[in-house]
Amino acid sequence: MKLLKNVVLSALLCVSSMPLIAGESPITKQQKEIAQQLMNTALNSELGFNIVESLTTEIGPRLAGSEAEKRARGWGVKLGKELGFDKVTIEEFTMPFWDRGHLHISLTSPYNQELYGSALGGAAPSEKEIIAPIVYFRDIHALKAVKDGTLKGKVAFVDGEPMVKSQTGEGYGPSNQKRRIGWKHAERGGASALIIRSVGSDSHRFPHTGMMRKNENKWSKIPVVAISNPDADHLRRLHNLNKPLSISLHSGSDWKGEVTSGNVVLDLIGSEKPEEIVLIGGHLDSWDLGTGAVDDGAGVAITTAAAKLIANLPKRPKRTIRVVMFGAEEVGLLGARAYAKQHEKNLHNHVLATESDFGARNIWRIVSNVNPEATKLVDNIAKIIAPLGIIRGGSNVKGGGPDIIPMVDKGVPTIRLSQEGTDYFDLHHTPDDTLDKINPDELAQNVAAYAATIFLFADTNVDLKAK
Amino acid sequence: MKLLKNVVLSALLCVSSMPLIAGESPITKQQKEIAQQLMNTALNSELGFNIVESLTTEIGPRLAGSEAEKRARGWGVKLGKELGFDKVTIEEFTMPFWDRGHLHISLTSPYNQELYGSALGGAAPSEKEIIAPIVYFRDIHALKAVKDGTLKGKVAFVDGEPMVKSQTGEGYGPSNQKRRIGWKHAERGGASALIIRSVGSDSHRFPHTGMMRKNENKWSKIPVVAISNPDADHLRRLHNLNKPLSISLHSGSDWKGEVTSGNVVLDLIGSEKPEEIVLIGGHLDSWDLGTGAVDDGAGVAITTAAAKLIANLPKRPKRTIRVVMFGAEEVGLLGARAYAKQHEKNLHNHVLATESDFGARNIWRIVSNVNPEATKLVDNIAKIIAPLGIIRGGSNVKGGGPDIIPMVDKGVPTIRLSQEGTDYFDLHHTPDDTLDKINPDELAQNVAAYAATIFLFADTNVDLKAK
Repeated sequence: MKLLKNVVLSALLCVSSMPLIAGESPITKQQKEIAQQLMNTALNSELGFNIVESLTTEIGPRLAGSEAEKRARGWGVKLGKELGFDKVTIEEFTMPFWDRGHLHISLTSPYNQELYGSALGGAAPSEKEIIAPIVYFRDIHALKAVKDGTLKGKVAFVDGEPMVKSQTGEGYGPSNQKRRIGWKHAERGGASALIIRSVGSDSHRFPHTGMMRKNENKWSKIPVVAISNPDADHLRRLHNLNKPLSISLHSGSDWKGEVTSGNVVLDLIGSEKPEEIVLIGGHLDSWDLGTGAVDDGAGVAITTAAAKLIANLPKRPKRTIRVVMFGAEEVGLLGARAYAKQHEKNLHNHVLATESDFGARNIWRIVSNVNPEATKLVDNIAKIIAPLGIIRGGSNVKGGGPDIIPMVDKGVPTIRLSQEGTDYFDLHHTPDDTLDKINPDELAQNVAAYAATIFLFADTNVDLKAK
Repeated sequence: MKLLKNVVLSALLCVSSMPLIAGESPITKQQKEIAQQLMNTALNSELGFNIVESLTTEIGPRLAGSEAEKRARGWGVKLGKELGFDKVTIEEFTMPFWDRGHLHISLTSPYNQELYGSALGGAAPSEKEIIAPIVYFRDIHALKAVKDGTLKGKVAFVDGEPMVKSQTGEGYGPSNQKRRIGWKHAERGGASALIIRSVGSDSHRFPHTGMMRKNENKWSKIPVVAISNPDADHLRRLHNLNKPLSISLHSGSDWKGEVTSGNVVLDLIGSEKPEEIVLIGGHLDSWDLGTGAVDDGAGVAITTAAAKLIANLPKRPKRTIRVVMFGAEEVGLLGARAYAKQHEKNLHNHVLATESDFGARNIWRIVSNVNPEATKLVDNIAKIIAPLGIIRGGSNVKGGGPDIIPMVDKGVPTIRLSQEGTDYFDLHHTPDDTLDKINPDELAQNVAAYAATIFLFADTNVDLKAK
């Protein structure tokens, strides 16, 4: 990364000495220079890494709705004040709390062997230890075809290929079907529990947790557990050898009633159009197995650090920059939905929204969904951040990150700074999502890209909204 | 590896067409051709991988002295008979059995967080849950300096740098001090328990188990637990922030009395000098956290497969080739010691011994400890296996593998085929030591090197013993 840093710095020097062609861009020479200066500063700043280090170390895992997530909100408020944001708020909401409890899962036939598993979010507890034969399903399609009531007294296991790796994370959706809807077919079959191969692209002995999907507004009545890919490989091999498989499973995961969560909102008030909001952020909650470094301490750190670098400028940009540390993302975008609802009447003033929630590897692309005229602005911003190793991607890509979805539904324009995601699902939702997985130089590149990009969007007069 | 395989095959063809220079080597042209043929066959054979797949899948984890290790002996005998070895024996011995039991370990201050830990071999149980403040020691040297009785009511934590990676595994020894002798200083200090940073070179959330060392023939009276490197990093950061650290720990690990273990011995009886034995092998037991693929299912598979390829030749080599699947290696080379004792009167007939117990990556070097005249033979064997990507290393290197140590002490000559070990201690003694970590092509290169090398040592008349 040192090499990249030097290349970037030289490229920036080069670019900044070039005269602007008048009329080519709505970006002024001064804005461009400030953006370049922000990138330079960010690449040499440890602020982003310090923030994610602080969050993961001082707070630790932050399960949605937990006492730890509440401590994280306190941490966010303190940080926002220390960094000199103009306005720091917690916007609370209530939510149902699911807690993991204790899990025991082991093979009992053909021999005893502990399996590395994790209950899935929303899964029911086992009343007592379940000891039952395993019925093997090659994939989710095989389980979907199960006849009602044919799994009584059995535990279903859904195998499936390991997730396809891709830079954009596209392998997640197809692989995730078994996690989302597997339970309803297992339950329909009468199974005592469902075990799935983890939704993850690694081959380590870590289960990947994650939320299931409700069915007709109901959660599963049976325990549902993801086991690590090597454990799933093991069951597959035993199955292929025609060994009789059985399992012992005891899970304490359960719903624990209504609790309070919240979003932490940090504002840099715009100097000319304070009512117009450029929203960035990440989510403050994490799954409880790791310390939520990559998902999504990194996103909180990147966007907060980028905003802080902008705050250090002599003058606030024209528009308000808002950093939202969303609560309860992992369990169904609850913070995002609460935000969209609480700000319903003001969403028309949200001129742009984007979230960093795909790890901490290099940003390699900028995509957008703004009106055709504003698309030119994005093209020009892309040229300015190009020395960071970022290309201009699609100009008609709805998105902006998971917590932006409820705003997109209300017509808020978005961009996304796409992170290199090939390895993201190696760590995603595992105990291994810890600080050591973040490269400080890569994180700094993210901060640089966000700082320059967000400054330019906040300091422009260009209307970004679809007409 | 496909590329390597092709290069090797072309190189072998090339070499085999070269005439032998008379008197240069005690290896005949025919022996050389057979060795080359063995390499060719091995590189295209899946036998080695099939054996380690079978052991890890059908038997699973194989803790020394356990029922699983007994099943593994049965598996070894069945395999030896199926493969057509001339003699298949179990040589039993008794040993004290240490069992892991259940472990719970979590941080309780500054907040609750589960730690990923594993009891160390030989550690005592906690009578009940221990809840105590942590006293931080920078490294084993700091713990060694602790004054007697100053740790009462506390739990000691020994940090230390992560293990240095090296191709030869040299980082293990220095890093391992805290695992071997840490407990006696913690106990002397009066600590309720000892926690150590795992002895491992990875940064994954896996603890590395392993045996402690007795002190004056006694084992610890306190629980001793290794935590993963990311967990140790976490405690270090909290310590550096001056946070008060405390822990909850409950361990069921304990000694469970005397049990039977054993070595499985597979012989290919020599055609001319059956009394002279070339001994190869690996160890059949594994730690219980993973399935013992890399440590040491691979070694068992490599040496058994190599011997089987030699058994497929039209004629047995002159000397006897013995494959030993050692029992109870992990807990103090108990199988190796039993073997050396049981064969005490016959060790002078062990003309060479070597073990594969360093994973399943490519072999890159051959080292030896034989008499100076025989050293020339090793030099020439090294030339024959060079196309596999193997260089000639030191000619005065005592060793041959852990289970060979008791034989070395009695003067048995050794060679060692050194495996690429840079990543070995990433997996060593962790739950992540599973079959998926083995590359079948790399394993086949090991089988090729062993088959050619062992054939040549078994079919020569050269005396290898130091005069």
